Amino acid sequence: MNKLACATALGLLVILDFVSARAAEQSAPAESNVLGAPTPRIHADHSITFTLKAPDAHTVQVAGGDGLGSGPFPMTKDPDGVWSVTTPPAVPGFHYYWFVLDGVSVNDPSSETYFGYGKETSGVEVPEGGADYYALGDVAHGDVREKRYLSKTTGEWRRALVYTPPGYDKNPTVRYPVLILQHGSGEDETGWTRQGKAQFILDNLIASGKARSMIVVMDRGYATRVATPAVKFGAGSSAMDAKTAFSAFEEVIVRDLIPAIDASYRTIPDREHRAMAGLSMGGMQTLFMMPHHLDLFAYFGSFSGPIFPDLNSKQPLGNVQERPFDAKTAYEGTFADPSAFNSRVKLFWLGVGTAEPERFRTGIRGAADALKQAGVKVVYFESAGTAHEWQTWRRGLNDFVPRLFR
Amino acid sequence: MNKLACATALGLLVILDFVSARAAEQSAPAESNVLGAPTPRIHADHSITFTLKAPDAHTVQVAGGDGLGSGPFPMTKDPDGVWSVTTPPAVPGFHYYWFVLDGVSVNDPSSETYFGYGKETSGVEVPEGGADYYALGDVAHGDVREKRYLSKTTGEWRRALVYTPPGYDKNPTVRYPVLILQHGSGEDETGWTRQGKAQFILDNLIASGKARSMIVVMDRGYATRVATPAVKFGAGSSAMDAKTAFSAFEEVIVRDLIPAIDASYRTIPDREHRAMAGLSMGGMQTLFMMPHHLDLFAYFGSFSGPIFPDLNSKQPLGNVQERPFDAKTAYEGTFADPSAFNSRVKLFWLGVGTAEPERFRTGIRGAADALKQAGVKVVYFESAGTAHEWQTWRRGLNDFVPRLFR
Repeated sequence: MNKLACATALGLLVILDFVSARAAEQSAPAESNVLGAPTPRIHADHSITFTLKAPDAHTVQVAGGDGLGSGPFPMTKDPDGVWSVTTPPAVPGFHYYWFVLDGVSVNDPSSETYFGYGKETSGVEVPEGGADYYALGDVAHGDVREKRYLSKTTGEWRRALVYTPPGYDKNPTVRYPVLILQHGSGEDETGWTRQGKAQFILDNLIASGKARSMIVVMDRGYATRVATPAVKFGAGSSAMDAKTAFSAFEEVIVRDLIPAIDASYRTIPDREHRAMAGLSMGGMQTLFMMPHHLDLFAYFGSFSGPIFPDLNSKQPLGNVQERPFDAKTAYEGTFADPSAFNSRVKLFWLGVGTAEPERFRTGIRGAADALKQAGVKVVYFESAGTAHEWQTWRRGLNDFVPRLFR
Repeated sequence: MNKLACATALGLLVILDFVSARAAEQSAPAESNVLGAPTPRIHADHSITFTLKAPDAHTVQVAGGDGLGSGPFPMTKDPDGVWSVTTPPAVPGFHYYWFVLDGVSVNDPSSETYFGYGKETSGVEVPEGGADYYALGDVAHGDVREKRYLSKTTGEWRRALVYTPPGYDKNPTVRYPVLILQHGSGEDETGWTRQGKAQFILDNLIASGKARSMIVVMDRGYATRVATPAVKFGAGSSAMDAKTAFSAFEEVIVRDLIPAIDASYRTIPDREHRAMAGLSMGGMQTLFMMPHHLDLFAYFGSFSGPIFPDLNSKQPLGNVQERPFDAKTAYEGTFADPSAFNSRVKLFWLGVGTAEPERFRTGIRGAADALKQAGVKVVYFESAGTAHEWQTWRRGLNDFVPRLFR
């Protein structure tokens, strides 16, 4: 090797060192980690390094939500008994994950936990470059309140989370419109603020003047009537089963929650100033309620909520979405008279991620198309490249909220 | 066996069956379980059954807080791969716990998680017969708010939890006194409401007229100044180290938190209407702050907070508590003039559980005795039979709060 080649090679090594140092600099612990935990660690390309100390384990994998990639990813053990893996680049947003430790799904002690899959689950936040609409920004912030209210329907003191906007406490005569915003199956009332960062989305939209100040109410979407066995729905359930399962929660909203909120906060207690929306199961609940409650709400949103052409169907849920959507009969005839619907309903909003399973995409897009064709005003929103996950719903909320109460 | 013996034996079996059926009836899933999870299951004698499905595991144990007993408790596997154990009767109250699965500490997927030990940890709530002061009772409930505020000290938007009492929103001209209430080491701002049920203790005390309506502020007791490395304290640290570690948080409280709370809520912003208290590390922080902030607070409480005779000591923390407590010099001379202290400080409250480690008990009781002997007015509170755990602090809060702002 001559001197020039040597110098070039040396220069290359220096550059490579520099690149590698920069890559190391650009990686950072996920913001979803507990205080001081170095992993999960997000790299510049959104690959993620996970670690778990388990000297005596035989196999450890990491698995999680769709946006993490096509795992589970096998981990390998170092001489200190620390298992690790760096996954392929992940989709931006929030992903549930867990370790599979000798066959048992367990949380990562380095991660905060988030209620999903019917239990507390680890989660990893992958930043999205340029997306600051859900950041904890340098703007005025509303409060998120735990509100206890007595439910006659369930016979319990229930907990709802209530976002009151910036200025709520300073302006004791101002009254606000209300959005009821529901989580998905296996999640709870904490989902929209913890995983979804809904309060920061609202703060930022309000600060920039893009949305009206409003109160947002997030309740636990499960309810069982007093002295009545719980009705479950899941794999094998029909639309009819879901309707039955949701009916107690519908009663909670109408009979208990709305009166409690109107009595506790400075709301504008009429349909023109009340919206109902939800994600996945919460979207189903919104659309299932809509036919009976146009007197209560003038704005509706369904975020990745599966569409059911016939609420009285007794066929398992998986099948019904492939049946054609008939705007005349769907949702108990709510859309049968499009001009009546359009004048009564100020916003009907449907959204889905382009990386969601086909049954979601075709069902939701198909319904939106059929309704438009029938003359129903629909806002149809697509989130590019995101799955049945929170990034889809954050983007959806950011589109939905500015359209409310205008 | 003659007929009589047979009948007697049969009767006994029937009685035993009856007893066993009653015991089964009297057992119930812990209220700290996630929705619908059958275990942990609390029996009438407060023994607890834990289960975990882990067919391929080699050993599984359950371990946890002092009140659980002298574990870890080995679990045994049934043919379906479900490991289980029923522990000896536990002390009433909230106990952190975890499974040790082939050597790795993991959460129980059946339990809610609670921030403790610097991470999300499973917890089990064991009821205390006759103790309804921390129950979610049929009384008016305050809200617990997530409040974001900008800290100049740390350069971040921090989160505090703020309890506003029943009626706060209905009475927009009424102003309230403020209690700042801090968690222990390894816990965070959620501890007092999630593990401690402080909001229900306040609701019940206010409803019964035993306490004044007040605002309670719970902040995260960790802080690092802008562009400064974090200062840690722990095993081997001295009182001086702790003082240094706590000083950034002290600055947050004085410079950022109190002004933000006074600007956001209807407080009575003077020392006669402001109290500071905390448990364990939070009690240390309260007592470490006290000498410099008698201008800000007139009420102080330390719940199981280790006592330090000399804040400038460079000896490891474990040793200093065995040194004599001198009322003249302790806490930078705060108590040196007992009558001046007594006229300025409306309440000085120290509490400890009788089942706490001896270093806590002797340190706290010794300080209370020495102060009383010196003529300082001290309320000394003991919780019978409870350890360095939340039941001690719930009982303490229930004693402390009625004494405030009188």
